Amino acid sequence: MFHLHLQEDSQAPFYLQLYAQLQDQIREGKLLYGSRLPSVRALQTHFNISKTPIETAYQMLIAEGYIVSRPRSGLFVMNELQQSIASGDDTATRELISPDNMPPLPIQPKPIIDFRASRVDAAAFPLRLWRRSLQESLESHALDLGAYGDPQGEYSFRATIADYLQRSRGVHCAPEQIVIGSGIRYAASLLARLLGDAGTLACEDPGFAPFPDYFRKWGLNVLPLPARHIAARIGNTDAGAVYLTPSHQFPTGSILSYGDRERLLQWAYSRNAYIIEDDYDGEFRYSGKPIPSLQSLDRAGRVIYIGTFSKAFSPALRLNYLVLPEQLASRLKTERLPLDAPSRIDQWAMARFIEQGHWFRHIRRMRSLYGKKHDRLLERIREYFGEHAAVTGQGAGLHIQVSVKTNRSAADLVKLAADQGVAVYDLEGMLADSGGSGAADPVIYLGFAGLTEKQIDDGVRLLRRAWETALQE
Amino acid sequence: MFHLHLQEDSQAPFYLQLYAQLQDQIREGKLLYGSRLPSVRALQTHFNISKTPIETAYQMLIAEGYIVSRPRSGLFVMNELQQSIASGDDTATRELISPDNMPPLPIQPKPIIDFRASRVDAAAFPLRLWRRSLQESLESHALDLGAYGDPQGEYSFRATIADYLQRSRGVHCAPEQIVIGSGIRYAASLLARLLGDAGTLACEDPGFAPFPDYFRKWGLNVLPLPARHIAARIGNTDAGAVYLTPSHQFPTGSILSYGDRERLLQWAYSRNAYIIEDDYDGEFRYSGKPIPSLQSLDRAGRVIYIGTFSKAFSPALRLNYLVLPEQLASRLKTERLPLDAPSRIDQWAMARFIEQGHWFRHIRRMRSLYGKKHDRLLERIREYFGEHAAVTGQGAGLHIQVSVKTNRSAADLVKLAADQGVAVYDLEGMLADSGGSGAADPVIYLGFAGLTEKQIDDGVRLLRRAWETALQE
Ligand SMILES: Cc1ncc(COP(=O)(O)O)c(C=O)c1O
Ligand SMILES: Cc1ncc(COP(=O)(O)O)c(C=O)c1O
Repeated sequence: MFHLHLQEDSQAPFYLQLYAQLQDQIREGKLLYGSRLPSVRALQTHFNISKTPIETAYQMLIAEGYIVSRPRSGLFVMNELQQSIASGDDTATRELISPDNMPPLPIQPKPIIDFRASRVDAAAFPLRLWRRSLQESLESHALDLGAYGDPQGEYSFRATIADYLQRSRGVHCAPEQIVIGSGIRYAASLLARLLGDAGTLACEDPGFAPFPDYFRKWGLNVLPLPARHIAARIGNTDAGAVYLTPSHQFPTGSILSYGDRERLLQWAYSRNAYIIEDDYDGEFRYSGKPIPSLQSLDRAGRVIYIGTFSKAFSPALRLNYLVLPEQLASRLKTERLPLDAPSRIDQWAMARFIEQGHWFRHIRRMRSLYGKKHDRLLERIREYFGEHAAVTGQGAGLHIQVSVKTNRSAADLVKLAADQGVAVYDLEGMLADSGGSGAADPVIYLGFAGLTEKQIDDGVRLLRRAWETALQE
Repeated sequence: MFHLHLQEDSQAPFYLQLYAQLQDQIREGKLLYGSRLPSVRALQTHFNISKTPIETAYQMLIAEGYIVSRPRSGLFVMNELQQSIASGDDTATRELISPDNMPPLPIQPKPIIDFRASRVDAAAFPLRLWRRSLQESLESHALDLGAYGDPQGEYSFRATIADYLQRSRGVHCAPEQIVIGSGIRYAASLLARLLGDAGTLACEDPGFAPFPDYFRKWGLNVLPLPARHIAARIGNTDAGAVYLTPSHQFPTGSILSYGDRERLLQWAYSRNAYIIEDDYDGEFRYSGKPIPSLQSLDRAGRVIYIGTFSKAFSPALRLNYLVLPEQLASRLKTERLPLDAPSRIDQWAMARFIEQGHWFRHIRRMRSLYGKKHDRLLERIREYFGEHAAVTGQGAGLHIQVSVKTNRSAADLVKLAADQGVAVYDLEGMLADSGGSGAADPVIYLGFAGLTEKQIDDGVRLLRRAWETALQE
């Protein structure tokens, strides 16, 4: 009856045996997309074991996207990999391992097209080259594997980044000013300490919440200002630092004008304040000249620059960096701030990847790939929505902003889209303190980097269907 | 005259060309151990370039241990790899690239034998298996490389760790209680938030400083208590949490007795306080039965357990984990604490490494290897020092404590040893607030994991020579 068996005498614990067997069967297509899995209780009775290993195995499979749990109906195989295989009439070949012998529910799984802005194109990841970089750096640094590295980051990696930033983003800095970290939270935690006495942190509204959240969690003062007017307004506040995304404002996508850049710098010079420039997707600009960083305009050491490998490479790597003005960099040592750079192996590998020229080639390739997806998305929106939608924030980065002409709320639009199997995003979870954008149309954010052109086509078509009635109202 | 040349038209910037050429020449033995390098000014004149790329290249080589800077005499090739090759009369083959045509200084480089406790055996690192794990996990998770993972850590990795901890350290926990992190600083930062309202943090004196340092930096109260009497004294304090190393106290090496464990647990139960158990080297015990963790004795969810891959695997990886009592684990979500787990690729690779049984084999191998080094060190100390030194804290972990019979200070002993090319450590940089250990002999810490048996032999012999006069006084 079952295609599962547990061995008492195995090295592997029960949860792992169950997990591995179910995973295999899903991968190999023996358990088809949409199949119902036996309940925890049923397996418990069958195998006469405690429920912990069964629950653990199921949780693992859920976390990895092999199965989904539907309240009141059970657990179903829902592997994205198989989605493409699963065609209309597959009930014949759909195998059942349900011990309670229930027939498979006739679920019609919706394709899930996710316009999440933080996804990047996994298929374009340079798997072979990265594997080789890892391998070579492991080999050439084999003798260093027994020791801790520089907590600020490997010096040679910092030198490589300093050179890269100078060439591609106009950032001037020495390796001593660079701190290698594991993401924006690491950067926020360090800056919260370095700027703890700078008083209030101003930030963009709407904006990327995790950064100011961190300051707030440590009891520091945070002041959201309307993103579009931040340069004009900041002079009237008591802020001693400001966090912003000048190259492609998150999430609205607007670009900080040259005038506003100068205004912000003047403010920082006159107040001895700091500007934190989060250049998270600065590598991607599809039309016009690339915009140099704010840091490149700074003549007094008032700009802190943050870059990441999460957009141009992979968010799974957890690798980013901070460029501190010299004065702040020198405080790292004197105040013995608690630094701890991520894996030395990854740092060596990335330094090698850049030094061998792979990085520049990769960026060029990704820019062209994402440029195509960007254009495709804009085309489709024009085609399916015409006057009903207005796109802004395009031309750079990995997401756009769309205002939809309807009197429904953005939250309603998100829900309607979800019912058609399309995930889109509003300001939920973002920083948006100073109250909505007034009487304007609801605004939706669409990331395109993680989708294929076909998924972009299907996604926009389904959005039109999902919002059809909303557009009429 | 020079063996260096710079190409204007190269893809690689000047600093990288210089760095690569010098590194190659050192590796290939063309630049011998002890050779003097040209000064920055000399190279600047020669190449007619700015000094920044030259300084950067030299800094990179210094950071990576290829060259050392000696104040007032210059920069010298000092590559550990070559040390073994460099024999008595190598001046004949020692090549000179000094443009100022100075003859090589007759430096007699001392062998550097470093008894640093945090070093592990790089030669025993399972390079081939780890490379394969990385490779397989990259391939089987290729489609996940475009997305962020669970900020608490990959669920399957947490399940694997929960199972491992149950089997080998008696730790009871569900994957939901585990947080994957990048080291003790990450753990401290999270716990400082979770226990911010627990009041004072007690900790061991002497003890591992970075953890309480972090609490202090965030303005929390820290109370060092004499490590040996912590269980007896804690009841008379207002501490709401205590941080300790029960399996092998850092740095004294003593083991928390069963009675003290029970006393601490009773204290925690009665005060609703938390015990933070840092089990950093709990895998290594060379005689007698392994001691189960304090967490395994806890019947009320008062113990927070911290484990690391830095001792048993590699400190270069930056991978550790925390086991929270259920009650604290549930606060992770409700309070939206800023979690960010390290590289998913490393997590998948380590999960695979453990699941395939490599981890258990590796630990067994390392236990036997380190056991041999441990025994060797004790033998040599007995042989060379006899009554002049007393070893404590042995039998577990990767370092021992030695009290030396002399009226010199520990700092003096460290200096004398350094003059013989041996690095040993006193309490410098450790937490030691409550004033010295009274009138006792000076205490020195010797880590043995990162040294070969031959280096252990030589090191102890040199220590005897270094301290000869001090022992007579
Ligand atoms: C505004 C902004 N900054 C930074 C990041 C990147 O963060 P990390 O480097 O931690 O992956 C993101 C990711 O979505 C972002 O949207
Ligand atoms: C007492 C103690 N705890 C923890 C660690 C390990 O820290 P991490 O996991 O950050 O490498 C060490 C390393 O030396 C240590 O001595």
